[in-house]
Amino acid sequence: MAKKASSRLEWRINVPDGTSKVLEPESGVVGKIWVGLKGCMGIIVLKVRRVLENAWHIGVADPRKVIHCIKVGLALSIVSLFYYMRPLYDDFGGNAMWAVMTVVVVFEYTVGATFYKCINRVIATFLAGALGVGIHLVAEQSGDQLKPIILGTSVFLFASAATFSRFIPSVKARFDYGAMIFILTFSLVSVSGYRVVELFELAHLRLSTIAIGTSLCILVTMLFCPVWAGCELHHLIHQNMEKLADSLDGCVTEYFKEDGSEKDLNKKMQGYKCVLNSKAAEESMANFARWEPTHGRFNFRHPWKQYLKIGASLRNCAYCIETLNSCISSEIQAPPCLRKHFSSKCMKASSYSINVLKELVITIVKMKKSSNIDVKVAEMNFAVEELVDALKSLPTTHFIATTTGEESTKAKAEGVEGSEHPSPIMKVLPLVKVVSLMVEIATRIGGVVNAVEELARLAEFKAAKDGKPKQNQPTDKLVADH
Amino acid sequence: MAKKASSRLEWRINVPDGTSKVLEPESGVVGKIWVGLKGCMGIIVLKVRRVLENAWHIGVADPRKVIHCIKVGLALSIVSLFYYMRPLYDDFGGNAMWAVMTVVVVFEYTVGATFYKCINRVIATFLAGALGVGIHLVAEQSGDQLKPIILGTSVFLFASAATFSRFIPSVKARFDYGAMIFILTFSLVSVSGYRVVELFELAHLRLSTIAIGTSLCILVTMLFCPVWAGCELHHLIHQNMEKLADSLDGCVTEYFKEDGSEKDLNKKMQGYKCVLNSKAAEESMANFARWEPTHGRFNFRHPWKQYLKIGASLRNCAYCIETLNSCISSEIQAPPCLRKHFSSKCMKASSYSINVLKELVITIVKMKKSSNIDVKVAEMNFAVEELVDALKSLPTTHFIATTTGEESTKAKAEGVEGSEHPSPIMKVLPLVKVVSLMVEIATRIGGVVNAVEELARLAEFKAAKDGKPKQNQPTDKLVADH
Repeated sequence: MAKKASSRLEWRINVPDGTSKVLEPESGVVGKIWVGLKGCMGIIVLKVRRVLENAWHIGVADPRKVIHCIKVGLALSIVSLFYYMRPLYDDFGGNAMWAVMTVVVVFEYTVGATFYKCINRVIATFLAGALGVGIHLVAEQSGDQLKPIILGTSVFLFASAATFSRFIPSVKARFDYGAMIFILTFSLVSVSGYRVVELFELAHLRLSTIAIGTSLCILVTMLFCPVWAGCELHHLIHQNMEKLADSLDGCVTEYFKEDGSEKDLNKKMQGYKCVLNSKAAEESMANFARWEPTHGRFNFRHPWKQYLKIGASLRNCAYCIETLNSCISSEIQAPPCLRKHFSSKCMKASSYSINVLKELVITIVKMKKSSNIDVKVAEMNFAVEELVDALKSLPTTHFIATTTGEESTKAKAEGVEGSEHPSPIMKVLPLVKVVSLMVEIATRIGGVVNAVEELARLAEFKAAKDGKPKQNQPTDKLVADH
Repeated sequence: MAKKASSRLEWRINVPDGTSKVLEPESGVVGKIWVGLKGCMGIIVLKVRRVLENAWHIGVADPRKVIHCIKVGLALSIVSLFYYMRPLYDDFGGNAMWAVMTVVVVFEYTVGATFYKCINRVIATFLAGALGVGIHLVAEQSGDQLKPIILGTSVFLFASAATFSRFIPSVKARFDYGAMIFILTFSLVSVSGYRVVELFELAHLRLSTIAIGTSLCILVTMLFCPVWAGCELHHLIHQNMEKLADSLDGCVTEYFKEDGSEKDLNKKMQGYKCVLNSKAAEESMANFARWEPTHGRFNFRHPWKQYLKIGASLRNCAYCIETLNSCISSEIQAPPCLRKHFSSKCMKASSYSINVLKELVITIVKMKKSSNIDVKVAEMNFAVEELVDALKSLPTTHFIATTTGEESTKAKAEGVEGSEHPSPIMKVLPLVKVVSLMVEIATRIGGVVNAVEELARLAEFKAAKDGKPKQNQPTDKLVADH
């Protein structure tokens, strides 16, 4: 291709077919921009592709999210009818816009959140509208000079007060959205009241369009595959409980596993991390759940707050499992034969603890009082006691002192100074840690049991019909049934 | 007052002035309602009073919240001018409403959050407006029959897609609000475009009013006592670090305190709980902080994400302190003389650990590389090693076995079976737990040190001028200065 040798510096490429190509440097600035653009486009395409892949996985993992999107589209299409159908348009005119706006702003993933926003929006609009009209009437009487001053001052005062109320935790939890809508409506009414003559007409139209929007949202969200915040919370709590049981199982199995078994328990062990981080989700769900009407097995006044307490007690356990998990990765490990000796006792204690957790899961899933939770707790406590006894009966006949009591402690204190042969206490240390953490975890599981029993009392769970549920019935199946 | 004795049953009260009153039973239903109403009013008054007291405390604790409320009122009053001043009204007319709405919806507590909402709102409105007008033009060409179908389908599709995008974590973190505004504007434009002839006019007016609203918000939020999300995050992180140091100090002091000292350390000890629960706050602040322009000592591209990592490492420490805290309240305690022996070593290790944390606090507050963090870490590690050595040299000459190595472990295993005198190992157990937790905490503080050093590298902290800051300079003062 390069037919004559040019005098300037050239880059040549020898192509396999025998010819050689001259690489023409791209012409200056334009070339650079082109290369830059191509690079940018490449990055953008890559990012978009990654986001799309991500979206695909999210949709596959939880098809209800896709359904939610369809529901939003549906609600918006229905509300558009107000524009397309002439008779409706004649009634509402441009104000139908408020119905569209309401649907977009109010439609949320869970029924509870939608209810929360709808009720807040309607009440706040009504209150602010009434107040706005009232102040407008007062201002009307005070003459043209005072009117803007009265209106401006009232907007300033009410907006500031409502904004401040959003900082109060109890208001924020229930009426945050309402406070915003209050400010919005009040400002709009009192400000536009200055110009628009038909103020009552405006207020009435706005209220009725908002009512249409909210009732449409409530209908669509409740009729088509409703997602109840309460159910989600219920589900999250017993799922977290199972994850905790799995983590505990994974950690103990991993710690005492023979070197030969290469089963990867890592994923199973990490479940407790979800529990550690689920506080915010639990709280928002509990907040939304109390707006929900009776649905399925949940009454309007279901004790959702108690779920938060169960969640807190689960997190309490999770903190311990976190520490247990760090023991596993610690460098110093107890000598094999000692571990073997403790292995069976520890595994027993952990499996009984897990049994208790699984029984609690069944209690929550079935919403029936368990008849044999006391037995299982007793078994757990017995296993833990055995474990503690095993620790006590470590070959420590001469450990610290041969006798107990005050005398011994004195001897001990003197012994400290005299000790010259550091013994392999460090070798048992990790084991002692694991055992004491197991004891602590069992104690904290006791806290979970109490919280769940309190829930059973508050929500008036009935006693399970079958006194002795089949032991080999897998929990997973029960969860799936639910 | 009761002049004649009636035949029916009466309640009499002897009033101090000598007369006696007949208590007339309140007349039936009305009376009951009245009592009920009074009860309700009492409860409401009590609740309102409690909320007001609460509000007062919030205002006193953080006056910036009060200032924020005044700022919102101010911004709304300014935007109301559009209505009160005739020339401006003539330009924008009823569309000035959008400016009011923008101010109410967009104005947030921190500058970052306001920026996030403003930028999202403007871009989303622009994109959705352009798309809506485009689709409207296409629909216009397709005849009156197809037009509503095209418009309706496009609303359905885009609304569904935008709703789904809000489930993708990366989109949710940055563009959640934008997606909502996109749906809103797109629906409004494409739906109202069906009726309103001057579509371009509408789009132009809406964009300009929104621009006015957002720029007003940005001006007010930045000019009057701005609250920067970045500063808040920075502050939260070093505050949490201090709380952690205090908790550690409190726990160790409480555990080893003489029975005589009745100092209440409970409040100090509970600081770690804030650290456990601050994840959500940190994440939202980091999300907002990256929208903020350069301010104070923070550049536009300040590594806010690294703060999240520091936060995570702090929480990691807090988990351990949580377990340590539960050791303190445990019933079994080590014998006093043993505790006394360990007391000084443990206190030393804890105080060196606290020193490291305090040095990190100074590093973050001053935003200067510490010249003696390495020394402090070395001191901490040395103190921890001493502690471990003390544990090793417990009077355990006969503990487990007299020799170390494989041989001993065998002897041990046999010893287990033969042990008949359970020794007071349980008495040292809590102490061993505390010591091993101290070791673990020191390791995790190492993680915090690494995270802070990474921050210093990323944010290009300069080296501190004074190589040896005065040791007795209180950290609190530095924080107050900042």
